[in-house]
Amino acid sequence: MTENNSQIRIFDTTMRDGEQSPGASMTLNEKLELAELLESMGVDIIEAGFPAASIGDFECVSTIASRASKIVVCGLARAVPRDIERAGEAVAKAERPRIHTFISTSPVHMKHKLKMGENAVLEAVGRSVSQARGYVDDVEWSAEDATRTDFDFLCRCADLAIASGATTINIPDTVGYSHPEEYRDLFERLIKNVSNSDKAIWSTHCHNDLGLAVANSIAGVAGGARQVECTINGLGERAGNAALEEIVMAMRVRKDAFAYQTGIDATKLSRASKRVSQITGFPVQYNKAIVGKNAFAHESGIHQDGMLKNNQTYEIMNPEDVGVSATSLVLGKLSGRNAFRDKLENLGYELDADALNDAFKRFKDLADKKKDVFDEDIIALVDDQLSGAEELVSLHSLKVVAGTSGPQIAEIELAVEGDIKAARAEGNGPVDAVFKAIRSIVQNDSVLELFQIHAVTEGTDAQATVSVRLSEDGLVSTGKASDPDTLVSAAKAYIHAYNKLEIRRKKSTNVDA
Amino acid sequence: MTENNSQIRIFDTTMRDGEQSPGASMTLNEKLELAELLESMGVDIIEAGFPAASIGDFECVSTIASRASKIVVCGLARAVPRDIERAGEAVAKAERPRIHTFISTSPVHMKHKLKMGENAVLEAVGRSVSQARGYVDDVEWSAEDATRTDFDFLCRCADLAIASGATTINIPDTVGYSHPEEYRDLFERLIKNVSNSDKAIWSTHCHNDLGLAVANSIAGVAGGARQVECTINGLGERAGNAALEEIVMAMRVRKDAFAYQTGIDATKLSRASKRVSQITGFPVQYNKAIVGKNAFAHESGIHQDGMLKNNQTYEIMNPEDVGVSATSLVLGKLSGRNAFRDKLENLGYELDADALNDAFKRFKDLADKKKDVFDEDIIALVDDQLSGAEELVSLHSLKVVAGTSGPQIAEIELAVEGDIKAARAEGNGPVDAVFKAIRSIVQNDSVLELFQIHAVTEGTDAQATVSVRLSEDGLVSTGKASDPDTLVSAAKAYIHAYNKLEIRRKKSTNVDA
Repeated sequence: MTENNSQIRIFDTTMRDGEQSPGASMTLNEKLELAELLESMGVDIIEAGFPAASIGDFECVSTIASRASKIVVCGLARAVPRDIERAGEAVAKAERPRIHTFISTSPVHMKHKLKMGENAVLEAVGRSVSQARGYVDDVEWSAEDATRTDFDFLCRCADLAIASGATTINIPDTVGYSHPEEYRDLFERLIKNVSNSDKAIWSTHCHNDLGLAVANSIAGVAGGARQVECTINGLGERAGNAALEEIVMAMRVRKDAFAYQTGIDATKLSRASKRVSQITGFPVQYNKAIVGKNAFAHESGIHQDGMLKNNQTYEIMNPEDVGVSATSLVLGKLSGRNAFRDKLENLGYELDADALNDAFKRFKDLADKKKDVFDEDIIALVDDQLSGAEELVSLHSLKVVAGTSGPQIAEIELAVEGDIKAARAEGNGPVDAVFKAIRSIVQNDSVLELFQIHAVTEGTDAQATVSVRLSEDGLVSTGKASDPDTLVSAAKAYIHAYNKLEIRRKKSTNVDA
Repeated sequence: MTENNSQIRIFDTTMRDGEQSPGASMTLNEKLELAELLESMGVDIIEAGFPAASIGDFECVSTIASRASKIVVCGLARAVPRDIERAGEAVAKAERPRIHTFISTSPVHMKHKLKMGENAVLEAVGRSVSQARGYVDDVEWSAEDATRTDFDFLCRCADLAIASGATTINIPDTVGYSHPEEYRDLFERLIKNVSNSDKAIWSTHCHNDLGLAVANSIAGVAGGARQVECTINGLGERAGNAALEEIVMAMRVRKDAFAYQTGIDATKLSRASKRVSQITGFPVQYNKAIVGKNAFAHESGIHQDGMLKNNQTYEIMNPEDVGVSATSLVLGKLSGRNAFRDKLENLGYELDADALNDAFKRFKDLADKKKDVFDEDIIALVDDQLSGAEELVSLHSLKVVAGTSGPQIAEIELAVEGDIKAARAEGNGPVDAVFKAIRSIVQNDSVLELFQIHAVTEGTDAQATVSVRLSEDGLVSTGKASDPDTLVSAAKAYIHAYNKLEIRRKKSTNVDA
């Protein structure tokens, strides 16, 4: 049924399977921004969330659906009527809506998780796909834990799903257990044995528990799959999903061997990776393929020598191919507005006049404090601005005394809905003192789940980006802030997380009421 | 020539190819400690360095050689007489020495890097392997960039290497370009076409530029390779090498599909990963397979529910299999010496009486400052102690004033060879102020290459581990320190790096003189 049989659809599930990583929650604004980036990058299908999971998830899927133009927007649903109903409602406003419904088909999942026999599962497959088709024409069905499922039963399920109207059949390696030969063979056998298999697009969905997710995805394509489910940075539960950037670049660099292509604009890969890392607070390993900071760096004398003679000796891609600019030193305090705007455009940002003015002001402030302003500084600055939550509380001033003789002391002033409130606290370490001082002003029961500092750029006057994750009653929020003073970053990041948590709390109270 | 044809030799090159990662330099002490850990883990061959590269590298290989018992100790050498001579000298004291010599065989490398034709390369292969056999019986020969080499020429080179006495033939995918089917096929064809191919062990060496290193390594084994070259955490130039822990666990979890086994004690994988990350200052991605902090973590309601019912639903390995303890909350300030010693033994440390006393004292100090002491705290504390450099300079006291109104001020006292010296400095941020104050006492020309903070454990009173990397005149050193006060950690880490750099400088001056 495909117009071009070598075209591979990229299905991004960073916001659904990726967000299931412990601690990787994203806000609505972050998801909207990410959805825009993914659409502009050429992703074919975006799984925007699991609408029945929470009101927040429903709202995300529904807002993304109403804003998307050419990208297919998909919502996940278990094989239960209420889930499918919610997914149908959430994607209704999309130009190209999809419902993705799934049920486990492996013996261990059916017995222990579902407590259902084969016949009950089969009945659910038919019912759920038919119900989904009542809302949309584009229905994807997944056999959870497919790679540990009895082959004949998997064929019967897929057969029934297609007969009931599924247009995509996904064969997930849910626990990251399969290997390339086996996964390829599974697709070949399924496509051969399932009647009307040519009426659906077959899809891979691989997890990386054994480090094989990318190889398995490509093997699945060789076996006949034409959709690949993946995430930016390989984000996802446990060891994560197959990494979008690696699959796209493997197919591109080895197009001689893999005669397939995707519609992805690879020059946006680096930015997407950085953005997802910033949103989740999950660092990208230096030696991560394609997007790690060392992916194109050469240390040893042997390699440097070869690179100087010919970059083909050790590089099979150019850094520019994936959006890494060759040189990253750029602007200083004498740089003007035009140079700044040009730089933003090169980095892939299009800001309206107000946002540009605001960003330029923040850039000048930074350039006053910091000698060299690198690409990464500008990205941090603009992304910070774009993801800013409403400011219920903001930092007015901070003074910290720290050192070996302890206790460390923080004196802070916060603006709380217009009023300046001051506090002083002692702590076990300066960060502890700062957070205690903040909490003595804005009292709350949230738990600090994560505290992390990244040096964004090089040098002692590097901007430190701090991530703080707070949780309370099942709500989670991650705050981020950058400043050359680590302790100021920490205070701002805590306040950012607190503001987001408050806004969420108010929203969920309103909706429940 | 193998006694058991399903036994795979694990060749660890963390200290050679891994150390080639920009910024991943390790000291002699760190390498000695790592070598011990790798030997106790069951690694078969360790590539300890590149003896001709520097006096430091020579010394590392030679010291590791003199201490190793059952592990094969290998030194790398280009196909030049001086390199092979140095490698021969460096491994001479090993019980089981190996020389690993290599030359590029691909057209692009021969033309641009070597500026040699096929005949000259062939001549070098024969000469280098013969020379190496003059020092040791165990010689490995590698065809650099083998996967981009003309097949017939590769056969001729391998043929000659075996005829000249090479006992292992390594076929590196130097630029991470190959894919599993192709790499497997390459081994099958080589073993079929090279005369006397059964007289050598064939070896894989894969890079991860396209995310395929682990799959390629396993495919190479399926094609006939019986040695796998890999690194802890996949450390290595660019996107790194194949990850040892992923290869070992893939073969183990899928022993039904891959009928091979390694001699690795997998319960030490988690500790090795943490240690390499601490030594290099390179964070491990949360969703890194096997050793990432989320590798066994479950977030979503669906998965948690399944896990509670039966852990087989979503886990194909137990965390304990790779040395991750199920619960990590352990000791507090009331814990006694016996409980502490038991804990250390569980974590895999065997300390002599003096080291135990010292560690226990440090543990009690920490427990006074910190409510809950986690496994990770204890690991950081003991590892810190084991890797301690001689203290030329140490921190006596520190006071820092930081905050929004700036400039930040640090007042520091250092003990410099017995004398207390004091300084005060203003900086752009508190860390900048601290480093400036230190530098005003111990003046030096080193450049700060890396400054990184990790929160070792959870909570606001988490110990912060700071890594600082300094470089000067080609010498590089990484210092690390942990303290609940980030700024104290930063000061100590800087001083640690400075001490290591000074010791190195003195050594290299002595040797050159």
